[in-house]
Amino acid sequence: MTDIWPSPSSSIPGFSSCTLDRCDQVRVDPAALAEWFADPAALRIVLDGLDPALDGDCLAREPLPYDASPETHALLGCLEDRRPLFVELKRDIPHGGQFAPAVWEAANVMSAEELSLYAAARSLVDWHARHGFCAVCGAPTRPVKAGWSRRCVGCRAEHFPRVDPVVIMLAEYDGKVLLGRQPRFPPRRFSALAGFVEPGETFEGAVARELFEEAGIRVSDVRYVMSQPWPFPSSMMIACTAQAHDDVLTLDIQELEHAFWASADDVRAAFAGDPEARFIAPPAMAVAHHLLKYWLQAQD
Amino acid sequence: MTDIWPSPSSSIPGFSSCTLDRCDQVRVDPAALAEWFADPAALRIVLDGLDPALDGDCLAREPLPYDASPETHALLGCLEDRRPLFVELKRDIPHGGQFAPAVWEAANVMSAEELSLYAAARSLVDWHARHGFCAVCGAPTRPVKAGWSRRCVGCRAEHFPRVDPVVIMLAEYDGKVLLGRQPRFPPRRFSALAGFVEPGETFEGAVARELFEEAGIRVSDVRYVMSQPWPFPSSMMIACTAQAHDDVLTLDIQELEHAFWASADDVRAAFAGDPEARFIAPPAMAVAHHLLKYWLQAQD
Repeated sequence: MTDIWPSPSSSIPGFSSCTLDRCDQVRVDPAALAEWFADPAALRIVLDGLDPALDGDCLAREPLPYDASPETHALLGCLEDRRPLFVELKRDIPHGGQFAPAVWEAANVMSAEELSLYAAARSLVDWHARHGFCAVCGAPTRPVKAGWSRRCVGCRAEHFPRVDPVVIMLAEYDGKVLLGRQPRFPPRRFSALAGFVEPGETFEGAVARELFEEAGIRVSDVRYVMSQPWPFPSSMMIACTAQAHDDVLTLDIQELEHAFWASADDVRAAFAGDPEARFIAPPAMAVAHHLLKYWLQAQD
Repeated sequence: MTDIWPSPSSSIPGFSSCTLDRCDQVRVDPAALAEWFADPAALRIVLDGLDPALDGDCLAREPLPYDASPETHALLGCLEDRRPLFVELKRDIPHGGQFAPAVWEAANVMSAEELSLYAAARSLVDWHARHGFCAVCGAPTRPVKAGWSRRCVGCRAEHFPRVDPVVIMLAEYDGKVLLGRQPRFPPRRFSALAGFVEPGETFEGAVARELFEEAGIRVSDVRYVMSQPWPFPSSMMIACTAQAHDDVLTLDIQELEHAFWASADDVRAAFAGDPEARFIAPPAMAVAHHLLKYWLQAQD
């Protein structure tokens, strides 16, 4: 069976190679922004709903329509040749909370940089589509700052795109790491445990809380490894390791269908695609893949 | 002149010591939640608007009123003796975006744990007060999950409290670190540069982008040091170091009034409160204080 998850890069997680110049000064300079909208060389990327439309290994681009405006388009930034790059803000698109098959397929052919540009555009477009009204007073909102915020036409409150921190972590005990599977995972797939960071806690605190809530284990010595944007719709994955105080599991079965302590040999077998492996590893797109590789390297 | 910023702990930043058991299973168990609301031993913390009300070195607590309900109160968690702890959700409170003098004063007397509990409660109460309407459709929303989300009465969309990641970083070059001051800072105060993480970028990417946008410098080798909740209203500070490629500054004067490269001796003089120091150090409450101490220790 072919794994439909892509492997665009074995060295870094997907969505993590954004090199675009975001040109933030232009966002708050109405004259400069008007010039960029009027630039005949200006482009916009093409999305199919929230999914990427491809031109070879790039996101498809097309000339910015003559009637494009800050009401309908967000400025992503500029290309190396200084051409402005926009994306259209659409209202009638499906909610972008799920990792869609079209993204998996596109990610197989896109470069790491294009995939990262797509992540930024997707999160931004999805946020606009779901934030047409003011959470404070219920009145309509309008895009401002070239699409990097929205302002309420009633109470004037300004609202910014969400970036939602999620901790994802490997608890370690006696040379093994804790892996779990959620009911929605593909068969035999296991991954690192994860959960949203809540108001009033550090990343380190969130790692400790989630591991106790989901698996009943206490940890210390939490260490940050890497971060990854995960645009479904707007997560920021924060990958960590932690040292467990013991290996006795008490699972929250609402969250985890199963969990076990994997040895370095178990993880090596999974990465090798061994049919006898205890689990199927998370794909190279996911930060959990890289977190497991990071841990494995430290075991050699 | 006395510095009005508090120094509740010299070892870790403020708001970073949350030890409360958040009892997340109770949030989604209506029967258990009803029992907790009916518990005669249940307490709620007292806030004065969004500011803390104190009882000695603790947040003031009072019995949960008999008419308290999930419409009006959020469950913070439970105390060590398992007593449920709530906070009232008020609508008519000032916007909590600014670090208020009342918080500085209270932080001088509160324990690190109480101050962290306050941070969680403040962010949560402020979020509810400013999210009475659905961003998707404009209809009213109601608290659900014991106050840890809100659901739209119209389209049924569920909305979660915001946690907004902010990178704050010391760029290093030739044994010195870059410090800047915003126009709103107290006189002579300098701190690490900072900025919100945007959709589609890693923390490391955000650090590099912000340093280039605000100071014109390119960096590599970005390293995470620590995180800190900063509940004004809902930031998550991510403290990092980075290696600058050169020391030539091009300041964005909208963001930074001034910036300079501080030597270890400059930083030591500031921490010592030397009146001849080149700057006044950020207070112990702020993660920038601890980031500077972390850097200084590595210079010894």
